[in-house]
Amino acid sequence: MTRQQLVAQIFQKKSYLCVGLDTDITKIPKHLQSHPDAVFEFNKQIIDATKDYCVSYKINTAFYEALGVKGWEAMERTTNYIPDTHFKIADAKRGDIGNTSTQYAKAFFETMNFDAITVAPYMGADSIQPFLEYKDKWTILLGLTSNKGSADFELQRVIQQSKVGVESAELALDVASHKTEFLYERVLRKASEWGTPDNLMFVVGATQADEFTNIRTITPNYFYLVPGVGAQGGSLKEISEKAMISECGLLVNASRAIIYASEKEDFAQEAAAIAQQYQVEMQQYIKQ
Amino acid sequence: MTRQQLVAQIFQKKSYLCVGLDTDITKIPKHLQSHPDAVFEFNKQIIDATKDYCVSYKINTAFYEALGVKGWEAMERTTNYIPDTHFKIADAKRGDIGNTSTQYAKAFFETMNFDAITVAPYMGADSIQPFLEYKDKWTILLGLTSNKGSADFELQRVIQQSKVGVESAELALDVASHKTEFLYERVLRKASEWGTPDNLMFVVGATQADEFTNIRTITPNYFYLVPGVGAQGGSLKEISEKAMISECGLLVNASRAIIYASEKEDFAQEAAAIAQQYQVEMQQYIKQ
Repeated sequence: MTRQQLVAQIFQKKSYLCVGLDTDITKIPKHLQSHPDAVFEFNKQIIDATKDYCVSYKINTAFYEALGVKGWEAMERTTNYIPDTHFKIADAKRGDIGNTSTQYAKAFFETMNFDAITVAPYMGADSIQPFLEYKDKWTILLGLTSNKGSADFELQRVIQQSKVGVESAELALDVASHKTEFLYERVLRKASEWGTPDNLMFVVGATQADEFTNIRTITPNYFYLVPGVGAQGGSLKEISEKAMISECGLLVNASRAIIYASEKEDFAQEAAAIAQQYQVEMQQYIKQ
Repeated sequence: MTRQQLVAQIFQKKSYLCVGLDTDITKIPKHLQSHPDAVFEFNKQIIDATKDYCVSYKINTAFYEALGVKGWEAMERTTNYIPDTHFKIADAKRGDIGNTSTQYAKAFFETMNFDAITVAPYMGADSIQPFLEYKDKWTILLGLTSNKGSADFELQRVIQQSKVGVESAELALDVASHKTEFLYERVLRKASEWGTPDNLMFVVGATQADEFTNIRTITPNYFYLVPGVGAQGGSLKEISEKAMISECGLLVNASRAIIYASEKEDFAQEAAAIAQQYQVEMQQYIKQ
């Protein structure tokens, strides 16, 4: 899917909602748990009920891998079931040396027909490049995540200029003149040299609202995939006010708040009701 | 597998070789490519031929995922086929927020019976903790990888003391007094607070020999999984001289150099011959 197509969908539906299919077999309604294809059946009903209110679905690969071969089958079937009008994200957090990342790109962009995959930046350019090479496919790089552990590395300060191996007065000067940046800022800046707003997005957690204005300054034209609204506590209003651009530039994900809205047989209707609430709120924020 | 059991295997076989099963269906011998279960059949013959010379097998999940459901099946069958005397590594580079990492841990430690999984550190403590909670299972955290992209983030300098949000003379002082460290050093130091030498290892690329002495100083008792020997050019001798400890502390991986030693029907014998060469060289370095 191209950026133009994604933006058109957002404006048509007045929604930038992504529904996260973190489908946990132990948390789906009891009446479905004994279904021979329980995970796919649950996803199918969620998709049917919510597709008018969202522009994207995000499959969290971990929940499918936990079920082994059967889970991988349910992931493939779910991906095929999502309408092509919707932006299909594999939330897989992959990334490895070049020849291995090439295989991951093949898995998610060819063997399965995802539009996008989330990728971890730690290993640098050549671990990300193979994903960027696919036309009309997207790399969604981890920037500043929503979890507490983001403080451990992402929010650590690095010397702004690359001076590997130099430990001297020169470095001290950099810091004295405020030339440090958070690691996540370095990731945003470096990755912007590798990709473009047409094939690269960033994961920015909704719980990191203090940083959103700064992030928008560093990467003015990029889309962000924003998890952490709902169960994790981020504010849709605050994020939208701080980071929305003329082409929207946001995909806000909610998983548990939507798919587990009810534990009973009405789970799909309840999921639709919550998804619609998000859409109605989003409609107020979209500048068009 | 416990550390004690792993070390016993190493001393018994006089080998710290890990054979990497990066099995690419397009690269295996032609006579096997049409086999209905080609990847597993190839792996089976490689395992049968090399098991006396190595103590570990490492499955690179990307190559299996690229084949979809059939690939995942081949991975499960291969994992079951590896003898329990051998340390089974899922080279999966996973890591996500806590409730998702819990699902990945379940996938690789319960649904499949791996002894260890490689994990990416970017998202911090709570993304790693769920893997560490499994008794007699191992987390192998990316430290300093073998690829060129390691320069982009891993080898960037961070301010050594955690002073998030402070941009002042105090920071300048830290740098002036040489209190900076590489990001990968920060990862080693922080992760050593979360895990122990009995449940945590680090990935250190064989191409990073200049850093091995330093790495051993920071994490004196830890095992390292060392890829990058062979096709990527690292020196087994240099690594072993710089980083071996009394309990060995090294698992050196070779993938392509062993499994693609021959493109013909003799591939398994040739793989065995190369694996044996590694074992014979390793025998010289083991201090016992």
